[in-house]
Amino acid sequence: MSENKVPYKTYLEENEIPKAWYNLRADMKVKPAPLLNPGTGKPLTAEELTPIFCEELVKQELDNDTAYFPIPDDILEFYKMYRPSPLVRAYCLEKVLDTPAKIYYKFEGNNTSGSHKLNSAIAQAFYAKKQGLKGVTTETGAGQWGTALSMACAYLGLDCKVFMVKISYEQKPFRREVMRTYGASVTPSPSMETEVGRKILAEHPGTTGSLGCAISEAVEVATKNPGYRYVLGSVLNQVLLHQSIIGLETKAAFDKLGVKPDIIIGCAGGGSNLGGLIAPFMGEKLRGEADYRIIAVEPASCPSFTRGKFAYDFCDTGMICPLAKMYTLGSGFIPSPNHAGGLRFHGMSTTLSQLYHDGFMEARAVEQTSVFEAAELFARSEGLLPAPESSHAIRAAIDEALRCKETGEEKNILFGLTGTGYFDLKAYEQYNDGKMTDYIPTDEDLAKGFAGLPKIDA
Amino acid sequence: MSENKVPYKTYLEENEIPKAWYNLRADMKVKPAPLLNPGTGKPLTAEELTPIFCEELVKQELDNDTAYFPIPDDILEFYKMYRPSPLVRAYCLEKVLDTPAKIYYKFEGNNTSGSHKLNSAIAQAFYAKKQGLKGVTTETGAGQWGTALSMACAYLGLDCKVFMVKISYEQKPFRREVMRTYGASVTPSPSMETEVGRKILAEHPGTTGSLGCAISEAVEVATKNPGYRYVLGSVLNQVLLHQSIIGLETKAAFDKLGVKPDIIIGCAGGGSNLGGLIAPFMGEKLRGEADYRIIAVEPASCPSFTRGKFAYDFCDTGMICPLAKMYTLGSGFIPSPNHAGGLRFHGMSTTLSQLYHDGFMEARAVEQTSVFEAAELFARSEGLLPAPESSHAIRAAIDEALRCKETGEEKNILFGLTGTGYFDLKAYEQYNDGKMTDYIPTDEDLAKGFAGLPKIDA
Repeated sequence: MSENKVPYKTYLEENEIPKAWYNLRADMKVKPAPLLNPGTGKPLTAEELTPIFCEELVKQELDNDTAYFPIPDDILEFYKMYRPSPLVRAYCLEKVLDTPAKIYYKFEGNNTSGSHKLNSAIAQAFYAKKQGLKGVTTETGAGQWGTALSMACAYLGLDCKVFMVKISYEQKPFRREVMRTYGASVTPSPSMETEVGRKILAEHPGTTGSLGCAISEAVEVATKNPGYRYVLGSVLNQVLLHQSIIGLETKAAFDKLGVKPDIIIGCAGGGSNLGGLIAPFMGEKLRGEADYRIIAVEPASCPSFTRGKFAYDFCDTGMICPLAKMYTLGSGFIPSPNHAGGLRFHGMSTTLSQLYHDGFMEARAVEQTSVFEAAELFARSEGLLPAPESSHAIRAAIDEALRCKETGEEKNILFGLTGTGYFDLKAYEQYNDGKMTDYIPTDEDLAKGFAGLPKIDA
Repeated sequence: MSENKVPYKTYLEENEIPKAWYNLRADMKVKPAPLLNPGTGKPLTAEELTPIFCEELVKQELDNDTAYFPIPDDILEFYKMYRPSPLVRAYCLEKVLDTPAKIYYKFEGNNTSGSHKLNSAIAQAFYAKKQGLKGVTTETGAGQWGTALSMACAYLGLDCKVFMVKISYEQKPFRREVMRTYGASVTPSPSMETEVGRKILAEHPGTTGSLGCAISEAVEVATKNPGYRYVLGSVLNQVLLHQSIIGLETKAAFDKLGVKPDIIIGCAGGGSNLGGLIAPFMGEKLRGEADYRIIAVEPASCPSFTRGKFAYDFCDTGMICPLAKMYTLGSGFIPSPNHAGGLRFHGMSTTLSQLYHDGFMEARAVEQTSVFEAAELFARSEGLLPAPESSHAIRAAIDEALRCKETGEEKNILFGLTGTGYFDLKAYEQYNDGKMTDYIPTDEDLAKGFAGLPKIDA
């Protein structure tokens, strides 16, 4: 048997789990632009945010200076149930590609939520519990965030109300059942339970719902019911902060192995996974201590980075959320039904947007069928069925490895494998049947989205 | 943060993965009775078995004396993709139960097949490849075995033909798609592709199929096509041999921790998981070196151990397979539609049957709703959604832990968590909706099954 110097899987010890989250913003010379109150056009204050979000989370959201936030013990205990996650050397994929490149991936799918979302869900649920709240509300589309939050709330004994986009509620009954098994109440949105839901149903009786509408319902329930707050699974600074655990563990594992990645790749929807994975590496880059090529991969059907505008926009299609300065296709942009539901967001984390704008990272858009081709190759060689979202990163990692094959370079390529595809088999079926298509919005499609951008620019 | 002496998860290093499988039969004073040729009533020879099974596997099947079989390097390399699997200390479950017992579980679900089945699938596929075969055939009901075999065959570049019980093929399209993604051909059984399939369809045009029929089709294709052999995922001695990796790793991890389990619990369908988990512990017990309470848990709806007869019987409902001496409900016994598909088998491994008969282990039958109650409690506290099969072991482990609470005993309880329940959410839905029922066969039901037992007794 070949004795490989680097093992297939590198696990940190439990006592090596990082004890603090890293706040990338602290090392940014140009900070991400502040969230604005859409009514006044002025930066949102803690006072304006606390009726919606938990107090501690508001502090984290607005703090651009503190580099490290200690992780509370209770959250560390929860992390130990499913962390540290493995840093995997993709020997089998390398062999199939016949590349001199060394491919690594950080696998975040070994928990029932099936993704990295749990890292922030437990943090947000913990602060809600600490504040003495009864419960939290949220929305979910594909269902990964809702599942993660349900798990965290079940663990802490917190009530969890999930508004699930009606079409997903009907088409993804299994995701719904996981959430119910974890004790969450799952309501198809729009519903009759909220004012905004009733209004939408009256105007559009046959609607199958939207993420924007589900957000509106979740926020309404949180603000109208004493003891409840609203929580969100991506985009926000606080979420990137919690997700830094991914990158911190990855860096610690690489340090143990004595390996330095050359290229770091992550899929980008709202930015939670990418922002978490790259955090400590980007920190070194910002401080001038090291250099890395960092690549964000997005679907060609929803190309916020590669074809969007860097401008203030609403975070939700319902235009009730704060304004954020980010790469955006316009909150009215309707992405085609790409199977990577987690990447179908018109905007992007303000932090990542600023970093991209300032030239600290690259971005690339890939098409759906080539993503599933990569997913299948990965599944067959590495034995893990990847989520469609994660497979965007796999596509780019394979492309970089094939480039190394041409040049003969032995680069170390790292990508984030955010989750598993067990609830995405309708998409795989379409691919297996040769029925999957690609969609790239025309410039006219994009122009319609841009036309809806608010007239603010701070 | 509390510094626990035993970590939540104990992983062996990759170079600590056992290098040989352990053959429990070598330490049995009373060996399991041999398989008989149903035509002659005489023990099956290697010559009779090699047209159906791979040569190396036939040797393993018939060898009651060799204690250790070295694991080939190629299989060890594959094992490294998803092994060592973690031995988990269930701190959170212990806390919820408020028990002085210490609960451990060996988790085999961290791979896309979602279960321990992959341990034997890669071994069987490897020997087929080594023999220069083109491919293998098999049947699958719930789909875990078929998925595992597809993964192993994709890795080795071997053709994989799976006959999937038609009702499962239609009701579990996602399992089917996983197999297709791994390149397997999946045929609903009965099919028009085989003589036996055409015969059955002519006689019963509306049939939704059965495992017995799917076995018959898979065996026919294997024996009629040069370069193919048939493989099976449970019951056989060779499968228990490969699955010993579970127990060997568990024992190595316990030795590292300096812990000795008092009670070892596994669910039992055909016996592959239970036989693998207990192997080295049972070996010590047989050699008089240690004592353990070992408990097999089966569904009350299909109680082979607790209400079956120890007699020669056919392994399949189609009565084409060899006769095995085992605890059986009769090959004609039709179990109620319990959701633990992997435990709906009328018989039991000959090795485990002999050990149970000789008093080396206990058995217990549990009802479906109490199993899902345990599954939900486990999911909410430990964060993993368990397979219905595995949840039988969880039920018994919880019951033992609650008994410790009464007596104040700090027993070490180990159970096998064979897999995840991501493809079993129809069952969870039924439980969440309060629509799940229990079924216990009457003595008359059992008498019908026993009436069909063959008149051989060696």
